[in-house]
Amino acid sequence: MILDGRKIRQEKFEELKKEIELLKNKPSIAVIQVGNNSTSNIYIRSKEKAAKELGCKFKHIKFEEDVLEEEILTTIDKLNNDKNIDGILIQMPIPNHLNTGVIQNRVISTKDIDGLTDINAGLLFHNKDSFIPCTPKGIMEMLKYYDIDVTGKHVVIVGRSTLVGKPLSTIMLNNNATVTICHSYTSNLKDITTKADILVVAVGKKNIIDASMIKSSAVVIDVGINREDSLLCGDVNFESVKVKCSYITPVPGGVGQMTVLSLYQNLFKAYKLNNKQ
Amino acid sequence: MILDGRKIRQEKFEELKKEIELLKNKPSIAVIQVGNNSTSNIYIRSKEKAAKELGCKFKHIKFEEDVLEEEILTTIDKLNNDKNIDGILIQMPIPNHLNTGVIQNRVISTKDIDGLTDINAGLLFHNKDSFIPCTPKGIMEMLKYYDIDVTGKHVVIVGRSTLVGKPLSTIMLNNNATVTICHSYTSNLKDITTKADILVVAVGKKNIIDASMIKSSAVVIDVGINREDSLLCGDVNFESVKVKCSYITPVPGGVGQMTVLSLYQNLFKAYKLNNKQ
Repeated sequence: MILDGRKIRQEKFEELKKEIELLKNKPSIAVIQVGNNSTSNIYIRSKEKAAKELGCKFKHIKFEEDVLEEEILTTIDKLNNDKNIDGILIQMPIPNHLNTGVIQNRVISTKDIDGLTDINAGLLFHNKDSFIPCTPKGIMEMLKYYDIDVTGKHVVIVGRSTLVGKPLSTIMLNNNATVTICHSYTSNLKDITTKADILVVAVGKKNIIDASMIKSSAVVIDVGINREDSLLCGDVNFESVKVKCSYITPVPGGVGQMTVLSLYQNLFKAYKLNNKQ
Repeated sequence: MILDGRKIRQEKFEELKKEIELLKNKPSIAVIQVGNNSTSNIYIRSKEKAAKELGCKFKHIKFEEDVLEEEILTTIDKLNNDKNIDGILIQMPIPNHLNTGVIQNRVISTKDIDGLTDINAGLLFHNKDSFIPCTPKGIMEMLKYYDIDVTGKHVVIVGRSTLVGKPLSTIMLNNNATVTICHSYTSNLKDITTKADILVVAVGKKNIIDASMIKSSAVVIDVGINREDSLLCGDVNFESVKVKCSYITPVPGGVGQMTVLSLYQNLFKAYKLNNKQ
């Protein structure tokens, strides 16, 4: 059975759109980009399109490649204090002369809709209310939509990025799953992935998981988005795995769809926070 | 082979003592206790004894059981701003009418020598310099002392407390171990523990791990401290496991010894931070 991110996104977008229609002031997102990375341009355009669809305001701030860090920080400070901005997002990657950690942590925690500040990570770690990074949040929403309970399940996550693997492991643990996290140093990957009730693959390498690496009837979540010629494919060999697993996410049309949804759910949460004050 | 916490503590205490002897102003710790819990009294006395041994100043602030939260918070604020205090520790447990999270997070991050604030957890999560909770820090120090490298090893942690299991899983991951974290919802515990190259048990139940649950030549770290009559014992059945494993920590004389060491290493780190400013 296919976990249909497109369908969930569409339904949840409709719900969110209706809620936003009722608001006098609309939620407003500011996206900071440095340089002119072509993939970033695509991602930002798709976020802008989603904002329009939902009736949110979208502000795109684009700096030159050689901008000084201080200038970005000053801009973030202004956005932090701007009552008309609810969420702030730093589009990655940023050039090497800039300190990613410093820039991301300059965003005030209540507008950190990507959930990438140290304080939001700590709140999540302590199982407190926080902004959760969009991809793991989307994965949890997807499992919930299909009534897949993670309690007591063995969840194996391949990949330990700050954006996906690490926060997802914390969320799964907070939701009472038994969690294993694997990565490039893991020696016996197949021995571990074949034990997974739920296998999440977030590596960024095509076809690293095939049917021999999963347990029969496992739930398989493919976070990879790899470009092959002009086609997108995931980290999982979909054709091989689909006949053995119980559920699987397609690429495209799976987790990627959920990530955009999460971003605007986080923006709506930030909007409510900012308008409560 | 026994992982001898007492020996490591002794050696490292000597080193630390020598460093502290050279200081004009001595590192100073403030311990806040609420009520008169007898176990807390024992722990505090043992911390005070260690402070004396090392030449650190020790301030014990004891509140009545029915103290108002506001009064504790005001005291923490004063300690935060007191240049003669380097580290602040809230002795657990505190009575139920008090909000543990609020009180712990009132401690300024640079004096949070227990590493329990949200911000220190987030820094650890993002693999940045932070104050690390004492028990996991002590476990890492112990493994380092015995040249046990965790890179690529499968580390299984039983127990997911904020004090031990959760932060240890993050540290192990940051050090390139493959990590599995198990807990009360884990259904197939034995299937998982028998895969561990390094097994850490931090549950607080006597004898939950015996030889049948470990892999031959595993490293076994027993964090449990259980009282049986007047004797202390760990979570691991020591007699059964010791003939099958490669290394094991005794209880007492194992991880517990390391925890006090970590506390004063953290205090020394805080001292240096506070005296740099």
